[in-house]
Amino acid sequence: MEDVHGRSGLAFPMTLVVMQGLILIIWTLYGSYAPDAEGTAPSPSSSSYTATTLYQSWLGVHIMMLFGFGNLMTFMHRHGYSASGYTFLVTCLGLQWCVIMYAFWHGLLGEGKLRGPTLDMTMLFQGDFGVAAVLISFGALIGKISPTQLMVLCFLEIIVYAASEAFVSEVLRAEDVGGSMVIHTFGAYFGLASSYVVTLPSMVLDGLDKENRASYTSDMFAMIGTLFLFLYWPSFNAGLLDSATNQQERALVNTVLSLAASCLATFLFSKGLRGHFSMVDIQNATLAGGVAIGSTCNMELGPGGALMVGLAADGFGWREGMGEEEEEE
Amino acid sequence: MEDVHGRSGLAFPMTLVVMQGLILIIWTLYGSYAPDAEGTAPSPSSSSYTATTLYQSWLGVHIMMLFGFGNLMTFMHRHGYSASGYTFLVTCLGLQWCVIMYAFWHGLLGEGKLRGPTLDMTMLFQGDFGVAAVLISFGALIGKISPTQLMVLCFLEIIVYAASEAFVSEVLRAEDVGGSMVIHTFGAYFGLASSYVVTLPSMVLDGLDKENRASYTSDMFAMIGTLFLFLYWPSFNAGLLDSATNQQERALVNTVLSLAASCLATFLFSKGLRGHFSMVDIQNATLAGGVAIGSTCNMELGPGGALMVGLAADGFGWREGMGEEEEEE
Amino acid sequence: MEDVHGRSGLAFPMTLVVMQGLILIIWTLYGSYAPDAEGTAPSPSSSSYTATTLYQSWLGVHIMMLFGFGNLMTFMHRHGYSASGYTFLVTCLGLQWCVIMYAFWHGLLGEGKLRGPTLDMTMLFQGDFGVAAVLISFGALIGKISPTQLMVLCFLEIIVYAASEAFVSEVLRAEDVGGSMVIHTFGAYFGLASSYVVTLPSMVLDGLDKENRASYTSDMFAMIGTLFLFLYWPSFNAGLLDSATNQQERALVNTVLSLAASCLATFLFSKGLRGHFSMVDIQNATLAGGVAIGSTCNMELGPGGALMVGLAADGFGWREGMGEEEEEE
Repeated sequence: MEDVHGRSGLAFPMTLVVMQGLILIIWTLYGSYAPDAEGTAPSPSSSSYTATTLYQSWLGVHIMMLFGFGNLMTFMHRHGYSASGYTFLVTCLGLQWCVIMYAFWHGLLGEGKLRGPTLDMTMLFQGDFGVAAVLISFGALIGKISPTQLMVLCFLEIIVYAASEAFVSEVLRAEDVGGSMVIHTFGAYFGLASSYVVTLPSMVLDGLDKENRASYTSDMFAMIGTLFLFLYWPSFNAGLLDSATNQQERALVNTVLSLAASCLATFLFSKGLRGHFSMVDIQNATLAGGVAIGSTCNMELGPGGALMVGLAADGFGWREGMGEEEEEE
Repeated sequence: MEDVHGRSGLAFPMTLVVMQGLILIIWTLYGSYAPDAEGTAPSPSSSSYTATTLYQSWLGVHIMMLFGFGNLMTFMHRHGYSASGYTFLVTCLGLQWCVIMYAFWHGLLGEGKLRGPTLDMTMLFQGDFGVAAVLISFGALIGKISPTQLMVLCFLEIIVYAASEAFVSEVLRAEDVGGSMVIHTFGAYFGLASSYVVTLPSMVLDGLDKENRASYTSDMFAMIGTLFLFLYWPSFNAGLLDSATNQQERALVNTVLSLAASCLATFLFSKGLRGHFSMVDIQNATLAGGVAIGSTCNMELGPGGALMVGLAADGFGWREGMGEEEEEE
Repeated sequence: MEDVHGRSGLAFPMTLVVMQGLILIIWTLYGSYAPDAEGTAPSPSSSSYTATTLYQSWLGVHIMMLFGFGNLMTFMHRHGYSASGYTFLVTCLGLQWCVIMYAFWHGLLGEGKLRGPTLDMTMLFQGDFGVAAVLISFGALIGKISPTQLMVLCFLEIIVYAASEAFVSEVLRAEDVGGSMVIHTFGAYFGLASSYVVTLPSMVLDGLDKENRASYTSDMFAMIGTLFLFLYWPSFNAGLLDSATNQQERALVNTVLSLAASCLATFLFSKGLRGHFSMVDIQNATLAGGVAIGSTCNMELGPGGALMVGLAADGFGWREGMGEEEEEE
């Protein structure tokens, strides 16, 4: 039986070959560039839009995936090394797969027919959003599943994620610009549900708790991850919004204010209730502030409203967090 | 009495609640979006300007605040952990407060009346400039003041900083694009002055010097901070300049050349006078080269002129620095 | 005789003074801003182009130089500290020098006359491309040459690099958008050739192999470097392409897909042939995937084609890599 580091067996290479093979065949037979990435004609989009601008925002999201989400997990000292590698694995696999599923479900639910995947910067955004959902789920499963199981999780979750996302936007026609519902909440519950199913009994009995403590080095890496999350969250929330109207700028500044308020509130709770600053708390506050403002960040909340969303998010987050009582050295 | 880590007392939470409460009330009652972040009409600005472009430059400044300025301080090994946390605290608090003060003083000195704060990407730049001044002052005070005192410093310094900045630009009508005078010089002297006033006697008597030495890990983090300063300083100097004329590009390339020359000169002095490369020297050279070119970076210095500014900056910086004689392991 | 850390002798400061002096004189006497960085008139370029957009892409390339290329080398534990410093040295020196050589050779081979260097964001790109070639060569020489020898290598290699690059583009009129041939292949062979010539015999006899092993900390820094390479490689390949046509967006998405496929394939080989994940393999895969797609990234390969390039690149890379048999703790 494969252990958590997946050191033996043919399961991993065979699973990877099958998945990458399937993805390659679909992209080769049915895939194409989107119109704005094809041919040599001038870009059909407006002059205020360039691929580079979109690419820079996407870079921020990609940095969040590889650094932020990966390094939050390296907090768990012993898992640090594998957590970063597994994040890489999920990102490379999920990105390719999620663009296919996005086209499939949006074609089916939106136009009632099958549609091949198209490729441009916007689709890379959609691909990373699916990766985000899987990485959030992975947070509930780290140390409990093998690399092979992680790939299977990634493959299956993205099918369900893309169906859910297409249902919300094509059928319900609901707006969820920052993906608070379809990405973050979905990913969290999918991960919790999976953790009841996919568990290696030997690992749970093993003393995992003692591996969950912080060291100076892993704290520092977690800090780097937290800073990147804090820095690039506005890219995540506002990157795909129309830059020709004012709502993109509003989404950016609302997210920045909400994050600042949420983190300040955490300094309050962290010292008030624990007696000292905790790195974990700042991480949780960043996540809470970014997710809370996500769905409404493009609306006219007013600066005061954005601050209140951040402050409230942190209050709620703390009611959850205190149960865990993370202890640092 | 609260110690330097602020482990006891109600002073910290109460100060934070009062400050964040005051800021929240002002933003809610008097704050609003700037025209380019309000409504759903197309952006009034020219087509070559998008909020995302400005946001990307602002991101560089924000990275400098959280990584560069914070990690320079982590050079002091034992303070590394708290220095990063305190940088976070100052950034979240100062950003919100400085935009309010900016509107207040520019309204008073520029238009002779009170003005409520407005929010858009440009204002987030102005907010981070105030944060920069406080973080520079903090460099002279680290290890000597408690978190509560740091918040009070942040609150008061930003009032004076914003008044000074508004006076220079509205009354003197002087140009200081990179903020060399109103941000860097102001912050340094404010910090030096404060260090005579706000000092915990017990901490100074304590053997701080032995905590000031480098370790391999903290050196590496200082290196990361230095690299980010070196990389993003052009964003700091040129981010707010008009991109419709050529002066923004000139400011960018002038700053890049000045930084390169300043760092090369440091390799010379560092080896020539010390006999080996010192990480601290490269940090100081980056700061010197970036600050020196700041006020004049948009002018037609010529490429040779930009190089000379960087080389000269480093020479002057070294006369100061040699007194310290930092020793590394 | 100067040792590998260059602790003694006047060779280093004198070499640096002569080189920086020569560069300063050339820039001062013959250098000028390019038209788009001069004067106060509106930028002559199209409205969809701004200096900031180009600057953001260039930042990615600069990050690759300072973080990625530097930290790949820190994998070698004992050299980590000096490798980062030397990368800094090469970047600051090579950037200034390569822009001069670019103008010289393009003037000579393209227009048949001498041309003074011009400065704008595009030229900073060209400067960093030369730095990339030197850093690649340095990878074959680390631990074997002194800082002084490194500066001489940088100076000479850039003369040859710029001549080769100008020959390919001006005389052969061949397109090599990502520089796979003129930068990466050139740099690798120049480094290999140099390693036969410039070697300190004492260092080679010394037990360098035992310094070549990984530690947890240096692995983590290598991981950060790898992530930055993976993230910013699209900037390297597509940054200078015309954003008014669709080929820039195509180059961006092709590079992203190729990198993802190349890294996935490495997970396969790394586990299949070694039995565990290796950080070095992911680094090599990123390099292989980015270089392989470089020359053709703007062409209409189709999404499937881009994936195949990445997968094939990794296969070839592995045939080379297995000979080394890097061992990790």
